[in-house]
Amino acid sequence: MDFLKKRIAECAEVISPDIVKADMFLNHMLDLKLLDAIGEEFCRRFASSGVNKILTIEASGIAVACMTARHFQVDVVFAKKGVRKNSSADVFSSRVFSFTHGEEYNVFVSKKFLQKEDKVLIIDDFLANGEALNGLIDIVRQSGAALAGAGIVIEKGFQPGGRLIREKGVRVESLAIIKSMDGGKIVFD
Amino acid sequence: MDFLKKRIAECAEVISPDIVKADMFLNHMLDLKLLDAIGEEFCRRFASSGVNKILTIEASGIAVACMTARHFQVDVVFAKKGVRKNSSADVFSSRVFSFTHGEEYNVFVSKKFLQKEDKVLIIDDFLANGEALNGLIDIVRQSGAALAGAGIVIEKGFQPGGRLIREKGVRVESLAIIKSMDGGKIVFD
Repeated sequence: MDFLKKRIAECAEVISPDIVKADMFLNHMLDLKLLDAIGEEFCRRFASSGVNKILTIEASGIAVACMTARHFQVDVVFAKKGVRKNSSADVFSSRVFSFTHGEEYNVFVSKKFLQKEDKVLIIDDFLANGEALNGLIDIVRQSGAALAGAGIVIEKGFQPGGRLIREKGVRVESLAIIKSMDGGKIVFD
Repeated sequence: MDFLKKRIAECAEVISPDIVKADMFLNHMLDLKLLDAIGEEFCRRFASSGVNKILTIEASGIAVACMTARHFQVDVVFAKKGVRKNSSADVFSSRVFSFTHGEEYNVFVSKKFLQKEDKVLIIDDFLANGEALNGLIDIVRQSGAALAGAGIVIEKGFQPGGRLIREKGVRVESLAIIKSMDGGKIVFD
């Protein structure tokens, strides 16, 4: 994934000690060729996992999830964010705290789109504190489906999400792990 | 696009006289094979338009846009929804009224992602009253880029958006146009 790290180093903007923007290729403009290579790599890493469904979360996970699903030849389900209540009978839902926006929101998936026979790979663009990923893992658990793991494009390794989720026994494959961004300089693990 | 109409007839849910849900394949679960065929068809229809960029709007436009961009071998820009003010210097933005949610929101694109040399194809999943599409067209106009047209997966032909936008001289290609949904029965144009 050297080309991904190269692109991050060239194009990503460090806008605060813990926030990096990848607007140029990952979550506002989408570099399809790069996303396709990313999808191919996730497919290689989880090739023997029997994945039959990819789960992501709106909005910026959708592009990576689609370009990954294409290589697996499976379908995508994207979790929605919103105000639906936890107790709704037809959805699996989980509460997620967004550090970026300083507020809690619900993330939910219609029950009809996750079955206990499924083997799910979670895909997302960023992993920092792990809140969104924990919400998606919770939803997979509720559905009774098996979890193959999580494929992340950029992990901020200096924030605790990745470590905490791996400690729970979830396989997390991050294509680029940022060790530090001190003084605006991105250093990879 | 008979296979799309077939899928709509089989899977889409008419939940009120003017709302149809395509959750099963278009905007919650994503049928990648179907989306890929849709993208191929948009590419065929706009093949001679010199498209070099695809513009869509989060969240449910992203998947179709990506699977279309793949065939054009171009990149995608997705407009974001939010509370950013119209006057921000670094974004093109437009106000959009959502009939679904009964509220207005801003839609915006960073200026750096649309240039006047661009030839833009707008892609979206649904066209009804045309509010979102008008917002995207407005953004393209602001940028000075050329507009190749709009590719829509499902147009609700009994709502005025498509007619009004075509009357402005914009080329709108809708793969499935629903003429009526009276009594929950979907009839295509």
